[in-house]
Amino acid sequence: MMNPYSNPYGQFSPLLTDLYQLTMLQSYIEHGMEDTAVFEMFVRKLPEGRNFLVVAGLEQVLDYLEYLRFSEDELTWLASRFPPHVIEYLKEFRFAGDVHALPEGTVFFPDEPIIRVTAPLPQAQLVESRIINLIHFETLIASKAARSVLVAPDKTLVDFGMRRAHGAEAGLLAARASYLAGFSGTATVLADAVYGVPLYGTMAHSYIQAHDDELEAFKHFVQSHPDNTVLLIDTYDTEKAAAKLTGLADKLARKRIQINGVRLDSGDLAEHARNVRRILDQGGLHETTIFASGNIDEYRLHALIQSGAPIDGFGIGTALDISSDAPALDCAYKLQEYADKPRRKHSEGKATWPGRKQVFRCYNDSNCFAGDVVALEDEQPHTGEPLLKQYMQSGERIQNNLPLNEIRRKTVSNYSQLPHAMKLLDTAPAYPVRISGKIKQLAEQLDARYAAKQQS
Amino acid sequence: MMNPYSNPYGQFSPLLTDLYQLTMLQSYIEHGMEDTAVFEMFVRKLPEGRNFLVVAGLEQVLDYLEYLRFSEDELTWLASRFPPHVIEYLKEFRFAGDVHALPEGTVFFPDEPIIRVTAPLPQAQLVESRIINLIHFETLIASKAARSVLVAPDKTLVDFGMRRAHGAEAGLLAARASYLAGFSGTATVLADAVYGVPLYGTMAHSYIQAHDDELEAFKHFVQSHPDNTVLLIDTYDTEKAAAKLTGLADKLARKRIQINGVRLDSGDLAEHARNVRRILDQGGLHETTIFASGNIDEYRLHALIQSGAPIDGFGIGTALDISSDAPALDCAYKLQEYADKPRRKHSEGKATWPGRKQVFRCYNDSNCFAGDVVALEDEQPHTGEPLLKQYMQSGERIQNNLPLNEIRRKTVSNYSQLPHAMKLLDTAPAYPVRISGKIKQLAEQLDARYAAKQQS
Repeated sequence: MMNPYSNPYGQFSPLLTDLYQLTMLQSYIEHGMEDTAVFEMFVRKLPEGRNFLVVAGLEQVLDYLEYLRFSEDELTWLASRFPPHVIEYLKEFRFAGDVHALPEGTVFFPDEPIIRVTAPLPQAQLVESRIINLIHFETLIASKAARSVLVAPDKTLVDFGMRRAHGAEAGLLAARASYLAGFSGTATVLADAVYGVPLYGTMAHSYIQAHDDELEAFKHFVQSHPDNTVLLIDTYDTEKAAAKLTGLADKLARKRIQINGVRLDSGDLAEHARNVRRILDQGGLHETTIFASGNIDEYRLHALIQSGAPIDGFGIGTALDISSDAPALDCAYKLQEYADKPRRKHSEGKATWPGRKQVFRCYNDSNCFAGDVVALEDEQPHTGEPLLKQYMQSGERIQNNLPLNEIRRKTVSNYSQLPHAMKLLDTAPAYPVRISGKIKQLAEQLDARYAAKQQS
Repeated sequence: MMNPYSNPYGQFSPLLTDLYQLTMLQSYIEHGMEDTAVFEMFVRKLPEGRNFLVVAGLEQVLDYLEYLRFSEDELTWLASRFPPHVIEYLKEFRFAGDVHALPEGTVFFPDEPIIRVTAPLPQAQLVESRIINLIHFETLIASKAARSVLVAPDKTLVDFGMRRAHGAEAGLLAARASYLAGFSGTATVLADAVYGVPLYGTMAHSYIQAHDDELEAFKHFVQSHPDNTVLLIDTYDTEKAAAKLTGLADKLARKRIQINGVRLDSGDLAEHARNVRRILDQGGLHETTIFASGNIDEYRLHALIQSGAPIDGFGIGTALDISSDAPALDCAYKLQEYADKPRRKHSEGKATWPGRKQVFRCYNDSNCFAGDVVALEDEQPHTGEPLLKQYMQSGERIQNNLPLNEIRRKTVSNYSQLPHAMKLLDTAPAYPVRISGKIKQLAEQLDARYAAKQQS
């Protein structure tokens, strides 16, 4: 059996694709349909209650395309299902196309292309499933994380969601995407090792329970981690535990050890935080911070901040890593041009805008986003900033993605350009995205051509 | 940078864990806390609208535990963050514990342990994050899939969701979990290569669009795949496409090629299916099946079946792979015993039942599930069938999991033992799960001991 975790090219197996990508590929090469195809990925509509999305996942897509090749094992497996000329084609497979995309961290809206792949048809088709899989997920999480960042810009926000993320890669990439969108870091160790995302951690209830005595548990932990002492105090009685800590702190102070913080994970977090803050302050522990976790999403976060609860940081887990209110985006990767002819999908309720497109963003006098225009790439220059950049040419990267913390900095500064109402959790008036007249004309032409054909 | 896709032990990197697992591990080994710990994973409550859950993911957990070791690269990375004695410990790390679990495919309910890990405390603690990550996700998907299987037991149900699954592993494991729960197969090629899940596939709209003519597209595909001809007919006009096919079929019949099926992906699926069935039948294509896809979940599936729409198979995508109505389960992995003493978490609203437990399932005269009892493992034999089995002893597997298609067969036969109301999509009266008197007694003893301690 194939092992998807030990790929010789350092990627998840390229067999992570839909069967039809391979059957279509076979038919394309058998019928000489290897002209240039242009596919664009876009979101059809915003999830309910959302005002914008934040794109992420491009770095993983570029890695995927750069290292995409089939191993001996995979070719052997495929050989029992596909004819020899398909196996030959896949053996030599190297992605040789162009990639244009919105830079990671860009705020975007429905109908705007977020990535465009220009490549021989069998290539551009084959990569569809994994490109969607990567961009969809990281965009989902970055967009969810952005809401918490906007609600609590001055707080420490930490991704705690790996255990209930959907599998290993989701746990890893959720840490990356939420950091990119402005989170402070993650509890997921691998995200530091792979992407350099800052790590945060405290202790589990089991740590306290395994000790016969809560205070002994605290002492043990401080001994082992004198520089990283965030103690979990809600296993039995939150306020009593806080009081025990003030006693312990006195003894530790003689050793010049400080208790950096405490974590609350149950009950009324605002009330406990106020009580604990008072107890800590009375004990002189003004520097000890309060960290809260437990079923927090952006709404609960907002309520806690509005209530003035003295909480310095938040662990946000499941709601973030599964994007609880909108666990999927209505997105698609569609053929817009083949062999130099624009193409349009006509299916009921699912028609697409044809042609190679660019997004132009306009700004008002305060440098806020004032509306986007989606136009054909070769239309006369529009006012507005063109957002799609080219990242790959003939299969080679032509510009490196920024380092992750640079992307994060730009992403967060992007938020300040959002119209005020769009920064709030409530639904704002829709942001204006205009489809250019030329695109509409082109769509009409294609419709007319199609209608004429249907009658002939 | 670490590469999580080319692990030397054929697993996702063991650094996919929460930071606190490592900081606690350090403290445990520094304080000689390596006695036997017992952790159990369970679900706290059913998602709204659900009547039962189906456990899955055990096979992946056993693989994880069996091959869990740290590579040179990982140890080097860890060495800059943890002291040498921790690195030594991790270098020699081999999971040496016992694992008891519900067999995959077992129907279960809140408060019932689904997996129990008995191992030296630092080991049992370290594996928490990934065990939850695996069992949570596959159980989520198997439980979601079961609902469609119960609604449409005689239809072909295919997992189409990889592209919007949360990352690579979710796409792969969703195919496994849904097949295990009774789906017919998946479109995800890797799931066949790794787990032997049967593959299904048709074609994309882009395939039709890339051709100047829809009929030409159909001809090309049939030429390439004479044995696997499921043609997508909704790109332009569904009924007209069906009519074209009847013409094509005549020509193909001379070559003894049959059109196996058509796929509908947009519009009113029931109405299109009726029209298409009529057109196909009039053209003599009685054998050509109709396959439908596009935003289908168990509710839409139910409505389509109730309407009598002549649809033979369904592709279920996003709703399945993200478990759209309940994208996470409220589950936990909790310390129940350490150093031979039962343990209990007391936190507000999150208290747990202590001790090593077994689930006993009772059956009525019709061999239907009639109620479960959760009891201590060493309580006098209960009537009812003990559900947890031992899979691993001292780190070695002592019984192999059944082949996946065997698990699937047992899972589906399990459904027939559900009380009738629980098989429906609506909420049924809660299934009776009784916590034994001895467990309650034990919990009270621990509470009393704790209260006494708080006063002293």
